[in-house]
Amino acid sequence: MARPDGRAPNELRPVTLTRNWLRHAEGSTLVEFGDTRVLCAATVEDGVPRWRRGTGEGWVTAEYAMLPRSTDTRGPRESVKGKIGGRTHEISRLVGRSLRAVVDFKAMGEYTITLDCDVLQADGGTRTAAITGAYVALSDAVKYLRKKHNLKNNPLTSSVSAISVGMVQGKARLDLNYLEDSVAQTDMNVVVTGEGQFVEVQGTAEGAPFDRTNLDELLDLAVGGCGQLAEYQKKALAG
Amino acid sequence: MARPDGRAPNELRPVTLTRNWLRHAEGSTLVEFGDTRVLCAATVEDGVPRWRRGTGEGWVTAEYAMLPRSTDTRGPRESVKGKIGGRTHEISRLVGRSLRAVVDFKAMGEYTITLDCDVLQADGGTRTAAITGAYVALSDAVKYLRKKHNLKNNPLTSSVSAISVGMVQGKARLDLNYLEDSVAQTDMNVVVTGEGQFVEVQGTAEGAPFDRTNLDELLDLAVGGCGQLAEYQKKALAG
Amino acid sequence: MARPDGRAPNELRPVTLTRNWLRHAEGSTLVEFGDTRVLCAATVEDGVPRWRRGTGEGWVTAEYAMLPRSTDTRGPRESVKGKIGGRTHEISRLVGRSLRAVVDFKAMGEYTITLDCDVLQADGGTRTAAITGAYVALSDAVKYLRKKHNLKNNPLTSSVSAISVGMVQGKARLDLNYLEDSVAQTDMNVVVTGEGQFVEVQGTAEGAPFDRTNLDELLDLAVGGCGQLAEYQKKALAG
Amino acid sequence: MARPDGRAPNELRPVTLTRNWLRHAEGSTLVEFGDTRVLCAATVEDGVPRWRRGTGEGWVTAEYAMLPRSTDTRGPRESVKGKIGGRTHEISRLVGRSLRAVVDFKAMGEYTITLDCDVLQADGGTRTAAITGAYVALSDAVKYLRKKHNLKNNPLTSSVSAISVGMVQGKARLDLNYLEDSVAQTDMNVVVTGEGQFVEVQGTAEGAPFDRTNLDELLDLAVGGCGQLAEYQKKALAG
Amino acid sequence: MARPDGRAPNELRPVTLTRNWLRHAEGSTLVEFGDTRVLCAATVEDGVPRWRRGTGEGWVTAEYAMLPRSTDTRGPRESVKGKIGGRTHEISRLVGRSLRAVVDFKAMGEYTITLDCDVLQADGGTRTAAITGAYVALSDAVKYLRKKHNLKNNPLTSSVSAISVGMVQGKARLDLNYLEDSVAQTDMNVVVTGEGQFVEVQGTAEGAPFDRTNLDELLDLAVGGCGQLAEYQKKALAG
Amino acid sequence: MARPDGRAPNELRPVTLTRNWLRHAEGSTLVEFGDTRVLCAATVEDGVPRWRRGTGEGWVTAEYAMLPRSTDTRGPRESVKGKIGGRTHEISRLVGRSLRAVVDFKAMGEYTITLDCDVLQADGGTRTAAITGAYVALSDAVKYLRKKHNLKNNPLTSSVSAISVGMVQGKARLDLNYLEDSVAQTDMNVVVTGEGQFVEVQGTAEGAPFDRTNLDELLDLAVGGCGQLAEYQKKALAG
Repeated sequence: MARPDGRAPNELRPVTLTRNWLRHAEGSTLVEFGDTRVLCAATVEDGVPRWRRGTGEGWVTAEYAMLPRSTDTRGPRESVKGKIGGRTHEISRLVGRSLRAVVDFKAMGEYTITLDCDVLQADGGTRTAAITGAYVALSDAVKYLRKKHNLKNNPLTSSVSAISVGMVQGKARLDLNYLEDSVAQTDMNVVVTGEGQFVEVQGTAEGAPFDRTNLDELLDLAVGGCGQLAEYQKKALAG
Repeated sequence: MARPDGRAPNELRPVTLTRNWLRHAEGSTLVEFGDTRVLCAATVEDGVPRWRRGTGEGWVTAEYAMLPRSTDTRGPRESVKGKIGGRTHEISRLVGRSLRAVVDFKAMGEYTITLDCDVLQADGGTRTAAITGAYVALSDAVKYLRKKHNLKNNPLTSSVSAISVGMVQGKARLDLNYLEDSVAQTDMNVVVTGEGQFVEVQGTAEGAPFDRTNLDELLDLAVGGCGQLAEYQKKALAG
Repeated sequence: MARPDGRAPNELRPVTLTRNWLRHAEGSTLVEFGDTRVLCAATVEDGVPRWRRGTGEGWVTAEYAMLPRSTDTRGPRESVKGKIGGRTHEISRLVGRSLRAVVDFKAMGEYTITLDCDVLQADGGTRTAAITGAYVALSDAVKYLRKKHNLKNNPLTSSVSAISVGMVQGKARLDLNYLEDSVAQTDMNVVVTGEGQFVEVQGTAEGAPFDRTNLDELLDLAVGGCGQLAEYQKKALAG
Repeated sequence: MARPDGRAPNELRPVTLTRNWLRHAEGSTLVEFGDTRVLCAATVEDGVPRWRRGTGEGWVTAEYAMLPRSTDTRGPRESVKGKIGGRTHEISRLVGRSLRAVVDFKAMGEYTITLDCDVLQADGGTRTAAITGAYVALSDAVKYLRKKHNLKNNPLTSSVSAISVGMVQGKARLDLNYLEDSVAQTDMNVVVTGEGQFVEVQGTAEGAPFDRTNLDELLDLAVGGCGQLAEYQKKALAG
Repeated sequence: MARPDGRAPNELRPVTLTRNWLRHAEGSTLVEFGDTRVLCAATVEDGVPRWRRGTGEGWVTAEYAMLPRSTDTRGPRESVKGKIGGRTHEISRLVGRSLRAVVDFKAMGEYTITLDCDVLQADGGTRTAAITGAYVALSDAVKYLRKKHNLKNNPLTSSVSAISVGMVQGKARLDLNYLEDSVAQTDMNVVVTGEGQFVEVQGTAEGAPFDRTNLDELLDLAVGGCGQLAEYQKKALAG
Repeated sequence: MARPDGRAPNELRPVTLTRNWLRHAEGSTLVEFGDTRVLCAATVEDGVPRWRRGTGEGWVTAEYAMLPRSTDTRGPRESVKGKIGGRTHEISRLVGRSLRAVVDFKAMGEYTITLDCDVLQADGGTRTAAITGAYVALSDAVKYLRKKHNLKNNPLTSSVSAISVGMVQGKARLDLNYLEDSVAQTDMNVVVTGEGQFVEVQGTAEGAPFDRTNLDELLDLAVGGCGQLAEYQKKALAG
């Protein structure tokens, strides 16, 4: 059973990471996983949230959102509705948590870095693209912060990337696009460090429940995919 | 390294499932996992959400919330703040998704069952207790629905329960209480059907990232724990 | 004309006051007036609202809410609607005002006690049960506060309880349940101190207006009922 | 102890009821109790709220609000804060309930009359002025409705007015202004029909609790005051 | 083509400016342009918004709103809807900006004056009446401020007024009422200082676009109208 | 006095209009005025707002928003704040009104086109770029609509573009960037049709009021600039 775009089961979509897409932000990356396109902007600000003041430690947080017409049919703006939906909340929290897993807050000092991940175009995998691109923007922001405030130690302890995997028509596949995602029986998002360790594993049975064999197959695919993404990130940051 | 309450690593806290705790609801269960206490109420209503009308299929949804003083220090009411927080949104969605995994909506007809899971007292594992208790309330509500509308087939295809597991001081442990949860390096919530298949796997590195060996150990513990919970559910529903 | 549950016109429903129902709260009481069941939790916090700072005086406030399925048909959550309804506001204010009537804020010092009154099951008289139970939780919280901060004088100047009365089919009745409440021509909530003095009298003509004779009869009933509630409170606190 | 404006204990402030203050509304009255000034506008609309449709009966509702600088110090706009406060909710509900007590909804047909009571200037007693003025606006709106839709029977069964009373320095006084209101030990708002019967009695101990003798004295004063207000209403509507 | 109320094309409606309509406000004016009636209240408060603190300069801001039944058909309250509409926002900003154009903030000191402009009755031109009346209330508030804080220099550098003009049936007209406004092809609001200079020009093609000749004609009319309004303001403030 | 980027007073910044930047939208344009970058997406939907149903006429509306880090310092998300600010409201309304000025709604039929204008990067003139780009996206959406529903007549009656002009250091300048905008004494946004007629003129004195000579100079510049923009639009749509 071929994939809709002819990819091999363990093949990523074309990945691009365009650094410094924005002029004002301390770090910014336009990340593309195929047709999925997310603009990640990192903002460095003095100070930390109230509950963290006086600890000498920094903070990293993220906000994820979709433009109304990033999707096939237009969705209402959350600003107009006056409240943020559950999915938006959930992904914002996931992105922040994933990035914090590779930050040494003591080395950072009392600064906050906010990652804004705005989906300009959606074709599946927006949260994993957001994490992958946000890491690159975060790296540039950390570079800026280190230079400006003369930080001795590198606040980044590793890199981090994410990919979706899923069971489609009984087969495990890497990096689902929207078409595949909407028919997947099981859908899993996996966040992995540059060393290949897990930061987050979120698997959901969309149709029938899944067994341990499926789970193992999906995890293998995901670790492989994140390994490739880590290479893309390294190359982009070296550029 | 002993657990704070002296349990074995693979030992659940005392579990109680008190059916029909409420007089008005079509199904209701007060579920306790140790000191965690969640009131689950199932409401059966005619009709389904707009996007599902005319399909002949039913719907199951859930809302999770915590009473302000269920926790150690009082939290502000979300009704007073005028918006629902990200964590509440996330858990409500998880509970609904978990229950829907064992429902045959065609057999159900165009009715909606809403599960309200209100945490009266919190000591870790509130979301897993909510799922486990909500299944029992759902069962009673489905029984009511079948009888009232003379449904031919059982809309429930299996049972479902959930448990938390985590790495604490380098060791895998089942059913963390709040004390353990707050120091766990890795925290995982696993939702499992009565047949031992996965509905949801959500693992998060709170401190250091985790490797495949940890993941496997935690999944083993969780499957074992959910097996015991399925027995508790069966017994409660037989009672 | 007999009452639906066979009570005498001046007879309360069975009353129970279960102290320390919650583990975390500084005071907590599960109060039951027949099938009406309200969980009252008292939280002691340092400091007072901004407008009271520097006065040396404390503050007592209350929040009342109903669980969605405490009632016969499910009501939408106020947190989901994003705003608090008029009835909720009104009762929260009433409970706070009633408790403050028996507090000596000078003796209390700059601490705030918040009473959360959450209706788990509703069968009429939820606001009067809330006041009656909240007083017991408040007493325990005050005891905690006195001990912890070594307060010289007792901040409680009296006890306070509340009961509903109403004209049903032309007759005055004490402690209406939901069935009676929904057909009452006049409905009155009366808050009374342990010394039998009035803190609040709220009478409303639901159908025809009422005259002075009715009013007097209702007040007599209410004062009698609150006398009995004061005894229940005393016994509970002695226990 | 003389009153700040030299009135006798049972004396109202100067009352004016200016009908048709607005050009667009089906009924409107600018009511003044001394310096308290409330603009009451009645709007007649086809149809009734959803829960009342098909009953053949009408509906009357009210909304109360204060202009930001009606008071001594400016209060923030509730529209800007994005939510209505508890006091506003409470008074809106009181005004609506008071007017509905003198309406025969069957005679009215499926129309809704909304009373907007906006406080232009506040000096105590705004809610009682609102009820008293709203009745006059309602009368004009009902007249309009009867004529336009040729209603056979008068939907108004009586008139209704309201006044505040209170214990100030140990003495019962009628129609408190802001100065008196802010020092009153007991504050009571009483709503009375043209026949002298009670629609609503709301007494609150602001300082010390009150006894039955106080209550009786206050009710006597209030009934007397509302009798005078009923005369003012009659005269205004005859004008 | 005669105007509906028989005015000449360059004729204002009757204008009245009633100072000190409110007892509490530091300045207040009831302004009437024909049947349009706006209550303008000026509040003086210590301090300035956070972003202006420590500059030694003052601030002037405005809030515009319409009473629900100021218009022909009742509009829902923005406080009840829980949000302010775009038109309200836009006009509030316009009023504030217009007044700030004639204020010397250095001479004012760190005080804030808030202008509340509440439309009691609407018949076209509410925003221009609001600006014209608010200037008078502001003048009185500034007088109060100068006296109270012994300010050396006058913070007001000029007067300011506003008027609407429009193309109706191909002809330029001054001060449109609602009837004319609703059929105008072009609608323009012009804010002018006492010296006849422009503070704001807002022209909108409601139907067909307009050319430079129309624009010039409308500006001429507006400058003439504002000249007359400046006289009304001077007379009112001299009174 | 040279301009910061060396442009002549009547010179536009480099303009680019990239059509079909998005895959899903029925029309989309990335518009750039120098460093200002706005993504305009047009969505065609069946049906019109409630108040327009049954008229046979279509509707065009717009929503404008800024990404949090489009600006020099990060601004909070309006979705997170839970309400839309006055400036956002105002510009959304301006964009919608400007586009509607060149639409024949009768020729369009009961369809709605929504223009989402999201500012990705801001450097002054975002609202004028939004209008200019949105017209191109609208053209493509109208083309789609005509083809799909076989519309006989072209719903577009002209083109429309917009530009900012301002007095900077006493001189009139075209197309201000952020640096110029922040020091301009007068700031004007002008919306002009392809035929050179005015749709909207919004001039504001930021510092000192302006006179008729300034106004005339600014209008001349704006009409010239919009003439050039109309050429860019024509070329883009021909491409």
